Amino acid sequence: MTDKQLHALFNPESVAVIGASSTPGKIGHSILKNLLEAGFNGPIYPVNPKASSILGRKVVNDISELPRDVDLAVITIPRNLVIPSIDKLGEIGVRAAIVITAGFKEVGGQGYYLEQELIEAAKKHDMALLGPNCLGMINTHGLVNASFAAGQPDQGNIAFFSQSGALCVAILDWALGENIGFSKFISLGNKAALDEADMISYLGKDEKTDVILGYLENVNNGEKFVQKAISHSNEKPIIIIKSGTTSAGAKAASSHTGAITGSDQAYSSAFLKSGVIRAHDVETLFNLAQAFSTQPLPKGPSLAIVTNSGGPGIMAADACEKSSLNMARISSASIELMKEFLPTYASLYNPVDIIGDAGAERYFKTMETVVKDSNVHSMLVVLTPTSSAASEIDEICHGIVKIAQKTDKPVFACFMGKKIISSGKKILMNGSVPCYSFPEPAIRCIEQMHKHFQWKNNPCPLPTPVSRDKGRAALIIDRVKKSGQNEIVEFRAQEILQAYTLPVPRTALVRSSHEAVEVAERFGYPVVLKIASPNISHKTDVDGVKLNIKTPDEVRKVFLEITGRSARLRPDAHIAGCLIQEMASRDCKEVIVGFKRDDQFGPLIMFGLGGIYVEVLKDISFRLAPITRDDAQKMIREIKSYMLLKGFRGDPPINFDAVENIILSMSQLAMDFPEIYEAEFNPILVNSEQAIVADVRMTLS
Amino acid sequence: MTDKQLHALFNPESVAVIGASSTPGKIGHSILKNLLEAGFNGPIYPVNPKASSILGRKVVNDISELPRDVDLAVITIPRNLVIPSIDKLGEIGVRAAIVITAGFKEVGGQGYYLEQELIEAAKKHDMALLGPNCLGMINTHGLVNASFAAGQPDQGNIAFFSQSGALCVAILDWALGENIGFSKFISLGNKAALDEADMISYLGKDEKTDVILGYLENVNNGEKFVQKAISHSNEKPIIIIKSGTTSAGAKAASSHTGAITGSDQAYSSAFLKSGVIRAHDVETLFNLAQAFSTQPLPKGPSLAIVTNSGGPGIMAADACEKSSLNMARISSASIELMKEFLPTYASLYNPVDIIGDAGAERYFKTMETVVKDSNVHSMLVVLTPTSSAASEIDEICHGIVKIAQKTDKPVFACFMGKKIISSGKKILMNGSVPCYSFPEPAIRCIEQMHKHFQWKNNPCPLPTPVSRDKGRAALIIDRVKKSGQNEIVEFRAQEILQAYTLPVPRTALVRSSHEAVEVAERFGYPVVLKIASPNISHKTDVDGVKLNIKTPDEVRKVFLEITGRSARLRPDAHIAGCLIQEMASRDCKEVIVGFKRDDQFGPLIMFGLGGIYVEVLKDISFRLAPITRDDAQKMIREIKSYMLLKGFRGDPPINFDAVENIILSMSQLAMDFPEIYEAEFNPILVNSEQAIVADVRMTLS
Repeated sequence: MTDKQLHALFNPESVAVIGASSTPGKIGHSILKNLLEAGFNGPIYPVNPKASSILGRKVVNDISELPRDVDLAVITIPRNLVIPSIDKLGEIGVRAAIVITAGFKEVGGQGYYLEQELIEAAKKHDMALLGPNCLGMINTHGLVNASFAAGQPDQGNIAFFSQSGALCVAILDWALGENIGFSKFISLGNKAALDEADMISYLGKDEKTDVILGYLENVNNGEKFVQKAISHSNEKPIIIIKSGTTSAGAKAASSHTGAITGSDQAYSSAFLKSGVIRAHDVETLFNLAQAFSTQPLPKGPSLAIVTNSGGPGIMAADACEKSSLNMARISSASIELMKEFLPTYASLYNPVDIIGDAGAERYFKTMETVVKDSNVHSMLVVLTPTSSAASEIDEICHGIVKIAQKTDKPVFACFMGKKIISSGKKILMNGSVPCYSFPEPAIRCIEQMHKHFQWKNNPCPLPTPVSRDKGRAALIIDRVKKSGQNEIVEFRAQEILQAYTLPVPRTALVRSSHEAVEVAERFGYPVVLKIASPNISHKTDVDGVKLNIKTPDEVRKVFLEITGRSARLRPDAHIAGCLIQEMASRDCKEVIVGFKRDDQFGPLIMFGLGGIYVEVLKDISFRLAPITRDDAQKMIREIKSYMLLKGFRGDPPINFDAVENIILSMSQLAMDFPEIYEAEFNPILVNSEQAIVADVRMTLS
Repeated sequence: MTDKQLHALFNPESVAVIGASSTPGKIGHSILKNLLEAGFNGPIYPVNPKASSILGRKVVNDISELPRDVDLAVITIPRNLVIPSIDKLGEIGVRAAIVITAGFKEVGGQGYYLEQELIEAAKKHDMALLGPNCLGMINTHGLVNASFAAGQPDQGNIAFFSQSGALCVAILDWALGENIGFSKFISLGNKAALDEADMISYLGKDEKTDVILGYLENVNNGEKFVQKAISHSNEKPIIIIKSGTTSAGAKAASSHTGAITGSDQAYSSAFLKSGVIRAHDVETLFNLAQAFSTQPLPKGPSLAIVTNSGGPGIMAADACEKSSLNMARISSASIELMKEFLPTYASLYNPVDIIGDAGAERYFKTMETVVKDSNVHSMLVVLTPTSSAASEIDEICHGIVKIAQKTDKPVFACFMGKKIISSGKKILMNGSVPCYSFPEPAIRCIEQMHKHFQWKNNPCPLPTPVSRDKGRAALIIDRVKKSGQNEIVEFRAQEILQAYTLPVPRTALVRSSHEAVEVAERFGYPVVLKIASPNISHKTDVDGVKLNIKTPDEVRKVFLEITGRSARLRPDAHIAGCLIQEMASRDCKEVIVGFKRDDQFGPLIMFGLGGIYVEVLKDISFRLAPITRDDAQKMIREIKSYMLLKGFRGDPPINFDAVENIILSMSQLAMDFPEIYEAEFNPILVNSEQAIVADVRMTLS
């Protein structure tokens, strides 16, 4: 897909409507009507085999009769005619098509194959393809409404794309009611060719778009999505709803990482990685859109609240304390200034309560002082329609707009009420100051904007390189693959870890109790014995691990017990003997590092504390590979039980560097070998000195 | 306060306005104007020393000249004239007063004492007193608007009281804009006499009120509040915002319970206990008010979603899965029925997706089938304004209203959009079907209604009695009080536990290493030694606890170490010796039970797992004492780490009965002895057989 094709799709110079209809209510009629009513400047060609004129336009009876300069064709004809039409359109040089017609992949069966043919046809003719099964596209600034949506949105700087046509309809109607403008409005339909990543890429460069909104149920290509989002989220906020939080994939989970890691975490991690802001509902999507499209980002977390009423001020302060923002400490210089014009009963601290009888002048002077305060990064102006405020509501709002225009800090309003304040709300809207009905959504918006500021100003270095002997690891993995095993046995997996310079306990495979004692004597007591079998991946299922073995006699006895029990419980399993390992120091904490390969986004790295913290409390952090050292540090700090690692009740802190290295190596391993489907180091025994990978499990796909 | 006075306040037959003014904009003018405009039927007497006529009404120049039949006086005169006026009004038999005037307790200093005098004056004359520092009161059905608020709300079945006058103003304006009606609208002001509990009590019996809403920053009297709320929340939903989540009280915390337990938990627990629904923001307050005031409660958790669009259907299902509701399983009989009239592409399962071209008839038949299904407890009708839906929007809405009126199950609508759907929204509103713009708030409302249904249908038995020797415990506590100590030393506290038949380990106080060995031999090894000092409450601070002591030599050595170290580190402390205890079995889990006395609501009982679960992860549950066995069971089940107690990785479940008994005893102890400020059993060692209180701390107030 070249830019030329996309340009033809969004900014066509001429449009053909294949399947234009003279019957009002039919889609082919609505599309033509919308094109005409939007005031499109170029030629419009209705195509219909029978009619001669529709809506005053001369009809072309067959595609072959169209002139050779058509940029965009909007297709709304029966399913079985779509592909032949694409071919004909391609032959006369049409560069872009919007297929409105449904009945493709979404209905399964024959529809699936038809969609494949459609993709091929568009590809053959080098044609941009939007849909099928979509509502169409609107470019307000280009005066193109190539959709059958009811109503024409105003011009604006917000672009919206959606995988759900119904949501397009709903949001368009909502925007019309709220006077919200759009730059582009795109229904993606089945995303046969053009998908969310293409939209981000195109809209990211679109001069008329300042904020990109999207509604998705899945992404077509995770890697492409992340790559496009990363390259544009720095310039323009990308805010997306991802719905349909389905359960994990079809592959059965063979580790805790696998059991815990669902596709929703992968989406969240992908959004986090690429600077995409995730909205969890449509209301939030729009609140954020208004905030990001009108106000600058706050350069710090400190919020000042100016209010004419105590109760709502407290509610706003509560909401601020619950967020990652904090209440700004108003400087004493500002307080001195405000003392001069505020009444005695006013509260000069934050929230600055200028009392119910405040009018426009008092509001203005206070806002001017507060917003200039260098301790303040953002300001929220709260108003309840007291009689003083109500009688000067327009002047107050003009004042807010004036202040917002003069400062580079974001200014938000929260007007509690509806009827009396409505004229003021309009002034704010026209002056590009977002106004909310309640303090909480306003503060959630400022919080997201501050997070986005932090993300933008994160140096975002390249993934931290890890030193390793990739060739040696590849040899081992190849050998396992050739053996036809899926599971890499611990002893082999340890060799891979060594190739990644990860510390593992001294380990040997022993085939008899005699050999076990010999090795134990060499390692020194206590030792650990574990069943060694390529067929037994959950060793604890057969009670196949015994720690803290202290004497030769015990070694002998445990060896016979473990191998005997395993053979009895799993008669099908090949028992290679036991692994014998030196025992790590007892004052260790257990952590887990794992990854699972998400179908869309690749390896999702997981970190958590061992045992119940992961299994019961689900206290885990995630990142998509490849990761940076900064990511690894954040993963460790994000879990709730982080305090246990930092040192608790007099324990020294663990060796964080060592754990970070293990996380980084896990990420590197996942990137190096796409054939590893999942891996888990569990437990990793960590104390203030070192971190040792005491057990490992790896599964090939 | 008798009902007669309250009746005079809310339903006066005549009203005097003390401080009526002829100047528009003045409060004394607005009140008179509001009274007149509301259409009040009885006589209205403006009182003003100078004027002769205001707003066409003859003015009374002095209170003494008023007739003897005045029920209610609304007072808006300078602060220093208020109390003399109350006296004069009392003398002529006025039964109720609303004091609008500010400058009392809220300004501190002199104002505080004036408010005390005001309370006394009202009490002396047996007068109901609303305010001071309030906006007034509106009774829409009585045609009384005794407030200076701008605008007159419609009649409705929702009552609202608020501690913030500004919030009254905001909500009134909001209600006017949304056409929401009210029964009573009450600004509480400083709550000098009438408070939230009085309002709940009055509105609970008010025939015009079906739902009670409130905004509070604190409660005047916790016990009274809980008592009144309990007696009315069963009949009418009480929905309250409590803002200003301040940090814990002034008393320094001497236990984990103390450190963790803030007043916000006490409010939440008090609301839970009394069936009050807590809203966390104004938007939720109103969403809930609309839901509760129009629809019946769902009798079960199963929700059915009927939608004309896939995306919004998925969003609704996501929201349902995140809530405590579940998606109803549509019965096969219903599915068979729907197959007859729904198109092939429709999805017959839940969400029932009737496709974008659905009109009124398809909606109606589907809703009718779904709502009758016995697997369905509530129904949410989702609509996006597709052209088919838009063209029949009014019929669709009439259909929804008809269905809702015929069924005893709650029916909600979620219409995504704004402009096209606005006529439909009005039909729903007039037909008492709540309609939301997004699925999430609708589902949160249904969830709260289901929770309220469960609460109402909880047998709510009396607090479970606990057998104990209260006299014996009283003797011990008295002795400690007389000694002037605040902290009850462990040895004495153990005696109290024994009086409550709680299991404690065999314990003895030993004063020498020799005596320690003697006792250890009698108890049997291993034993525990703990420092015994009334001055050392955190024994671990001096490393004053040693577990698992196995030999006489070790006992001797540890005794000398502990007492020596304690004396060295805390030279001021009186060292009584050591406590020696038998050692509980090693396969125990540690839990904590504690309580702290909240200033408003009394003892707040806490439960959690020992160690980091409480301290780091804050995984705790709360209830206000006195509690029932059901409460104790829920407290245990509410914590996230409950699964550890239930049996994890092959461990047997703990003895839940024994832990419940300890929680119940803690509650009983807290109720029996108001002089105990806080207490904590930590750790309680629990396994499948028993629960032993291994350490205890109690502090007197």
